[in-house]
Amino acid sequence: MAASSFSLSQAATGISRSATPRHGTTTQNPSSISTVSLPSFSPLKSTSTPSSIPVTQRRVSAARRRVISSAAVEALEKTDTSLVDKSVNTIRFLAIDAVEKANSGHPGLPMGCAPMGHVLYDEVMRYNPKNPYWFNRDRFVLSAGHGCMLHYALLHLAGYDSVKEEDLKQFRQWGSKTPGHPENFETPGIEVTTGPLGQGIANAGIANEACSLAGHWGLGKLIAFYDDNHISIDGDTEIAFTESVDKRFEALGWHIIWVKNGNTGYDEIRAAIQEAKSVTDKPTLIKVTTTIGFGSPNKANSYSVHGAALGAKEVDATRQNLGWPHEPFHVPEDVKKHWSRHTPEGAALEAEWNAKFAAYEKKYAEDAAELKSIADGVLPAGWEKALPTYTPEIPADATRNLSQACLNALAPVLPGLIGGSADLASSNMTLMKMFGDFQKKTPEERNVRFGVREHGMGAICNGIALHSPGFIPYCATFFVFTDYMRGAMRISALSEAGVIYVMTHDSIGLGEDGPTHQPIEHLASFRAMPNILMLRPADGNETAGAYKVAVESRKRPSVLALSRQKLPNLPGTSIKGVAKGGYTISDNSSGNKPDVILIGTGSELEIAEKAADELRKDGKAVRVVSFVSWELFDEQSDDYKESVLPAKVTARVSIEAGTTFGWEKIVGSKGKAIGIDKFGASAPAGKIYKEYGITKEAVIAAANEVC
Amino acid sequence: MAASSFSLSQAATGISRSATPRHGTTTQNPSSISTVSLPSFSPLKSTSTPSSIPVTQRRVSAARRRVISSAAVEALEKTDTSLVDKSVNTIRFLAIDAVEKANSGHPGLPMGCAPMGHVLYDEVMRYNPKNPYWFNRDRFVLSAGHGCMLHYALLHLAGYDSVKEEDLKQFRQWGSKTPGHPENFETPGIEVTTGPLGQGIANAGIANEACSLAGHWGLGKLIAFYDDNHISIDGDTEIAFTESVDKRFEALGWHIIWVKNGNTGYDEIRAAIQEAKSVTDKPTLIKVTTTIGFGSPNKANSYSVHGAALGAKEVDATRQNLGWPHEPFHVPEDVKKHWSRHTPEGAALEAEWNAKFAAYEKKYAEDAAELKSIADGVLPAGWEKALPTYTPEIPADATRNLSQACLNALAPVLPGLIGGSADLASSNMTLMKMFGDFQKKTPEERNVRFGVREHGMGAICNGIALHSPGFIPYCATFFVFTDYMRGAMRISALSEAGVIYVMTHDSIGLGEDGPTHQPIEHLASFRAMPNILMLRPADGNETAGAYKVAVESRKRPSVLALSRQKLPNLPGTSIKGVAKGGYTISDNSSGNKPDVILIGTGSELEIAEKAADELRKDGKAVRVVSFVSWELFDEQSDDYKESVLPAKVTARVSIEAGTTFGWEKIVGSKGKAIGIDKFGASAPAGKIYKEYGITKEAVIAAANEVC
Repeated sequence: MAASSFSLSQAATGISRSATPRHGTTTQNPSSISTVSLPSFSPLKSTSTPSSIPVTQRRVSAARRRVISSAAVEALEKTDTSLVDKSVNTIRFLAIDAVEKANSGHPGLPMGCAPMGHVLYDEVMRYNPKNPYWFNRDRFVLSAGHGCMLHYALLHLAGYDSVKEEDLKQFRQWGSKTPGHPENFETPGIEVTTGPLGQGIANAGIANEACSLAGHWGLGKLIAFYDDNHISIDGDTEIAFTESVDKRFEALGWHIIWVKNGNTGYDEIRAAIQEAKSVTDKPTLIKVTTTIGFGSPNKANSYSVHGAALGAKEVDATRQNLGWPHEPFHVPEDVKKHWSRHTPEGAALEAEWNAKFAAYEKKYAEDAAELKSIADGVLPAGWEKALPTYTPEIPADATRNLSQACLNALAPVLPGLIGGSADLASSNMTLMKMFGDFQKKTPEERNVRFGVREHGMGAICNGIALHSPGFIPYCATFFVFTDYMRGAMRISALSEAGVIYVMTHDSIGLGEDGPTHQPIEHLASFRAMPNILMLRPADGNETAGAYKVAVESRKRPSVLALSRQKLPNLPGTSIKGVAKGGYTISDNSSGNKPDVILIGTGSELEIAEKAADELRKDGKAVRVVSFVSWELFDEQSDDYKESVLPAKVTARVSIEAGTTFGWEKIVGSKGKAIGIDKFGASAPAGKIYKEYGITKEAVIAAANEVC
Repeated sequence: MAASSFSLSQAATGISRSATPRHGTTTQNPSSISTVSLPSFSPLKSTSTPSSIPVTQRRVSAARRRVISSAAVEALEKTDTSLVDKSVNTIRFLAIDAVEKANSGHPGLPMGCAPMGHVLYDEVMRYNPKNPYWFNRDRFVLSAGHGCMLHYALLHLAGYDSVKEEDLKQFRQWGSKTPGHPENFETPGIEVTTGPLGQGIANAGIANEACSLAGHWGLGKLIAFYDDNHISIDGDTEIAFTESVDKRFEALGWHIIWVKNGNTGYDEIRAAIQEAKSVTDKPTLIKVTTTIGFGSPNKANSYSVHGAALGAKEVDATRQNLGWPHEPFHVPEDVKKHWSRHTPEGAALEAEWNAKFAAYEKKYAEDAAELKSIADGVLPAGWEKALPTYTPEIPADATRNLSQACLNALAPVLPGLIGGSADLASSNMTLMKMFGDFQKKTPEERNVRFGVREHGMGAICNGIALHSPGFIPYCATFFVFTDYMRGAMRISALSEAGVIYVMTHDSIGLGEDGPTHQPIEHLASFRAMPNILMLRPADGNETAGAYKVAVESRKRPSVLALSRQKLPNLPGTSIKGVAKGGYTISDNSSGNKPDVILIGTGSELEIAEKAADELRKDGKAVRVVSFVSWELFDEQSDDYKESVLPAKVTARVSIEAGTTFGWEKIVGSKGKAIGIDKFGASAPAGKIYKEYGITKEAVIAAANEVC
């Protein structure tokens, strides 16, 4: 789909402004637009002294004024145009040459977008090439990730050590710092992984969700560049895309600017950025009309320049056409010299900010400490003591409610915890009661109202998580609707964003809403996905344990599958048990030789336990194992695994109200997996459980069969 | 998410006009907007006589004029207002009483939308209650499926045998015809399953994709009703949704009408429908401002009336408020009498159309035969003979190219075959070369240009498949981007829509584009989904076999995972082998006792075969099994399964360039599964295969280990 970027909303790049510490920073993942403001206030609200908020906001506006004036100066700053041309052509040819050498890649976008790239990285953005992680940097995202050679070329010129000449020459090769699509975990200077367009701004479906929220929140610091080049992979965009993007974004509450000449109109680009910066109550879309593959005499303005090397002949023709006599990967001396200033300037910017922060720390010790914890990601000592624990005497409750108890226990001790639901807060139980709604006028609050926008919600949470290690974003919907955000969840897993997915109504146990709302294959589909934790807690202690794991997993997202229906607090469950993934909750066997092992997860662990009680009455030695997370169990030592699931004991029965797909691994070929391998039904939950055979009786029968 | 329908784009219902046979029919699944025109011409284009097209279109416009004039009359037709009020209240209370009895469900929408429901089903739509499948019926879709009691009440009043009084009383109960969300496979009269909002028009992400296409195609026959009630589950829509829907739809090329009084303004509703019908070059959005839960004195206009029973006290208050003295589920005699006319009228409409069709059949035998085959879904005799077959001498090719050969071989013999790609036609290889593009001005063509709109594409294909049994829609993107359409694909499986998903670039074999583009967990994630066929053909014969299975599977969608890289035509592969799901392609063992069984799928079957060659040189008795579809193999007899995978032979090695999750079922606890349980990488394909150990050497080593 990255390969299709030119079609629907064209390659979009973005940039936004940095600010004073008090103002926090900005991110430019267009799919994480919310973080443009989120990171700043939310963690800084002193929950103990709400009175400080107005003060906060006064100081903010002041800060904002300062930033804009200084930014305006930057944007006006000009450099000798012939040198700019040269720099822009340097960017074009670094891309052309790298794609040519790899004989693979996408030259069209870099050739067309080089001018805006130059203006952004050379004139507008504030960064420190020698510290790509400087907290207050401007953050740039190339939503059309396939055009990453543009970004690599810019990082190279700007002096980032992550992209040296030899790295450019290793474009798309094994183990290189310059992979085929930008990956935040491979290349310092890349903020987020944007391979699949939807994760940026370019995919209509998700972009409309994210951009609708950006408009709703009035994210004045967001500037999105829309590369209007009229070319899609299958030909001119006319064949499938004739809507008015300007009007649509206006409808979403954006400010629109059109740069008619994105190929050589450097001043137009500069003026547009300046205007965009002056609009502080709305996000801005700068539509930049460009020619894809600009400079290529025979392939410019056609799909053929999008996703394949130009070929030696056309490369020569392009060198001729643009008057570029240099050998591949050459950066002219004067261009090199011109760009070299960013290294000392960046260091100075960071030093200046550090000084500001030190002063700020003196004045606002508590706020500064919170901001620091967001910036460095060190969890407050003893935070986990806030987690609730339960005994069997405590009445049964739905794990979605127990989840809310955890969120409300953790919110005060974790300044980076922020999130919400896709218009199901009252069903997902995700409100932090001591906070209000994050809105245009209350950006210091931490409850985010995503609306019915699952895909945008997931992508926004990725942006929050990747903004700073101390942010712990969570988001919620019905488990079955992970189907609507799977693209974003895969990016969480791939880009190591520790998002917490609070997924309620996790089985046929939701009852009457029927099969469209009842997950069947979803547990398996996440167990099959790399680097994501699938957790299905069974009661209060396990829900707390799931949150402990999720909060500690900052480089691996967690999916919590939670029940709508009430579940009893079982004896034997524990927070530390959950950390092992699978553990014994009850056992009347000895010598690690039970007659049968019953394995359950979530709402079915209770059924396994009840079946065990009866089997024990019949004199059987029965072990009951809670299998709350397959991934965590896989990571345990062989000795531990053997202590829970001894190889010799092949009499195993699993029960889970979902597909049996994958369970053979746990129960083995001699065991039995009780589950659901068809779609659900609309009826009261108890009736469906009975009709689908997810019952104590079925477990007992299976146990007697296998042992 | 259905529960969130009121938030993002509100509950949306739709309706559209029927037409003469020549004009074909219309569907009203807003997510399958394309079918509004698709079904009509495309199958009717006589490929042998393209000259007939202009004629076609002349006749169409004539037909269209006829339809509109007659429709206008209908829309103007009025009935005694007091009786309409009574009918509308009947609808409201049938919903209230059913939800009350079930103590579960969503009364708000039916109470608010009853007036438009009455006007549509009593005055505007053309249907035959005694034959819900009449080909030329108007098709109504309630996108906000949770409000289905509105639809059930209307079907009940209109005289559909599927919804009798006792069915209303069984709302949301086990085995009833009135499940919690509308399911096309449960209730005649329900066209499509719309539980998850995105599958209708109400989810911003997917709706924007589908509606953008509706505007692009100028689907003048589409009328969508937008229930503007300002209420979302989490409160007023203001908390998360402040965009201008009117403007956004204008930007998408729609005609907009606003009905300010949707509660009692029957004439306003009638006039809006009349105006919408008169706009024939654009789809129309009728924004109807309503009060959710209209009539409930204490709960109307609040989220509390959305998704829970009113409660006995409030039901009484509502009966008081609306002057409704009747007992639950009562339909007043005069209302019953008024609605009873739809049974004879519907029968007459169908008879009239049948007569028209008979006349048409005389004039245009060939076209009529094609239309008939679309209507009854009988595949042309011997169609499968068109499938290509291959021998090992034929040069290696990518299965994506072999797929295109199949599509182009089948297109001329299957009039219902229609589809396209999400702007990747040139990568997915999905163009039918003898046809042009389906566009506003060329609706008789069969290549659909979906643009970068995966989710909308899948939902549109569901609508085409469910429109008539003879339609065989296919759609294409990169396999990894099924993540963007998974919601629609699950609905294909659940609602038994035989869509063919042509998914190319199916593994790390795509190379340089890197991990965001390389599927790992996707094969497993579909094998875990009920009622969907996951097929991964290895060469030419298996690709043809996969198409044979997919075309024949009209009630089960098929996912074809196809390679970007070239694969040799292997000895032993066959079309009939694919139908078994798993089968032996080579074997030097005897007595069904091989030393080891090597199992591969798709591009890795070649590797298994090469490993077998070497193992045989070392004197081993080796069987190679192609495991192209797990679902089909599961459906074979135990004898057949034993003949391929004898229980006694536990020495088994599988190889597949994807997750090993699930393979334990096939290779058993003594076998070895070679696969990839982490994300991919950016490099040339061969290099990644080597580094990830997806090699002949790895298979040989594993084989020697297990036997």
